[in-house]
Amino acid sequence: MKGLVITHGVINDIEFYKDIKYDICVCADGGIEYAHKLNIRPDIIVGDFDSCDRELLNIYIDKGVKVEKYPAEKDFTDTQLAVNMAVEMGCDEIVIIGGIGYRMDHTIANIHMLAELSRRNIKGRIIDEHNVIFIIKGEETIEGKPGDIISLIPFGGNARGLKSEGLYYQLPDFMDIYMPCGISNVFTEDKAWIKVGEGMLLAIMARD
Amino acid sequence: MKGLVITHGVINDIEFYKDIKYDICVCADGGIEYAHKLNIRPDIIVGDFDSCDRELLNIYIDKGVKVEKYPAEKDFTDTQLAVNMAVEMGCDEIVIIGGIGYRMDHTIANIHMLAELSRRNIKGRIIDEHNVIFIIKGEETIEGKPGDIISLIPFGGNARGLKSEGLYYQLPDFMDIYMPCGISNVFTEDKAWIKVGEGMLLAIMARD
Repeated sequence: MKGLVITHGVINDIEFYKDIKYDICVCADGGIEYAHKLNIRPDIIVGDFDSCDRELLNIYIDKGVKVEKYPAEKDFTDTQLAVNMAVEMGCDEIVIIGGIGYRMDHTIANIHMLAELSRRNIKGRIIDEHNVIFIIKGEETIEGKPGDIISLIPFGGNARGLKSEGLYYQLPDFMDIYMPCGISNVFTEDKAWIKVGEGMLLAIMARD
Repeated sequence: MKGLVITHGVINDIEFYKDIKYDICVCADGGIEYAHKLNIRPDIIVGDFDSCDRELLNIYIDKGVKVEKYPAEKDFTDTQLAVNMAVEMGCDEIVIIGGIGYRMDHTIANIHMLAELSRRNIKGRIIDEHNVIFIIKGEETIEGKPGDIISLIPFGGNARGLKSEGLYYQLPDFMDIYMPCGISNVFTEDKAWIKVGEGMLLAIMARD
């Protein structure tokens, strides 16, 4: 089951997200503004509701959308709560939109969530107009097209036993967290195959 | 010596940077556009110059600014080249502006540069209108004011032996990379003291 988590980062071009496919949708707090613009009726809205549009929240409540309120003083961000909710609801694939914003701390915490999802064998991705971000562990085949840019950065520690096919620059066997050298690699085929023997890579398919 | 590295991410409010202090300035490629807006004459401009304003580059060359051109196919990003140049020129403190942008791969590679600087005992920071980003290893006292937000996220592996003073939420002894729980901590005094026994923390002083 594919979950869509909508959170409250920066979305400039709402049209970019209009064809997004999902089975269930969880909104984190202010993310309801984007849900509204996308004509999406979330299955559940979670958060501390410190900063969201109350009127809009009430509209969703009137429509029968479930709302789960958490205290502002909590160990998790609103996005973490929403992602955990999607996992509890049975999603084995989660796409986060609105997960990148001006606040780099929230952006990076969301990226760490991807690692947590990967540990639980759930396919997680953060998508915005310029980036598709995910974690690679073990072996993975990634779809793209020749010329597409993919950056591969060690995440959470050094990465070893790296191998790649279908990319312009072959990955080195070892990448350390001090000098990531995998920025702006390029697809030469429709698919890239990447193997990570030890550790994890953060993969970012990026466009300007 | 304090180095200013200007690179080509997103700067919306150029006025925010106008009082920035530095001894030498290195521009990475398209970063010259921001240097120009800030009336800064860089000491050196580095990059592959694939994407920068040629006319502006020529103006700086005519003014006698040194330019170091690298091939587009290189192991380092333009920002990494610029930071390395600032280190070679003797900086023991480096501030990066224009280091955060739409491209999350470049943004994250720049954050990894901070870890590399920290390893070389150079104080590195990425600053934009919403964030001051730096690495904490060992013990550090950070200046702020009550109410300031600081997020503390394990970087490059788990972090252990954590202690803090002057923050609303005391740091747990251990933080793992899967569930960073240090988002939106708050200064309760003018200074926060943080100790990292093992590993590193990524510190982000953030504002909306």
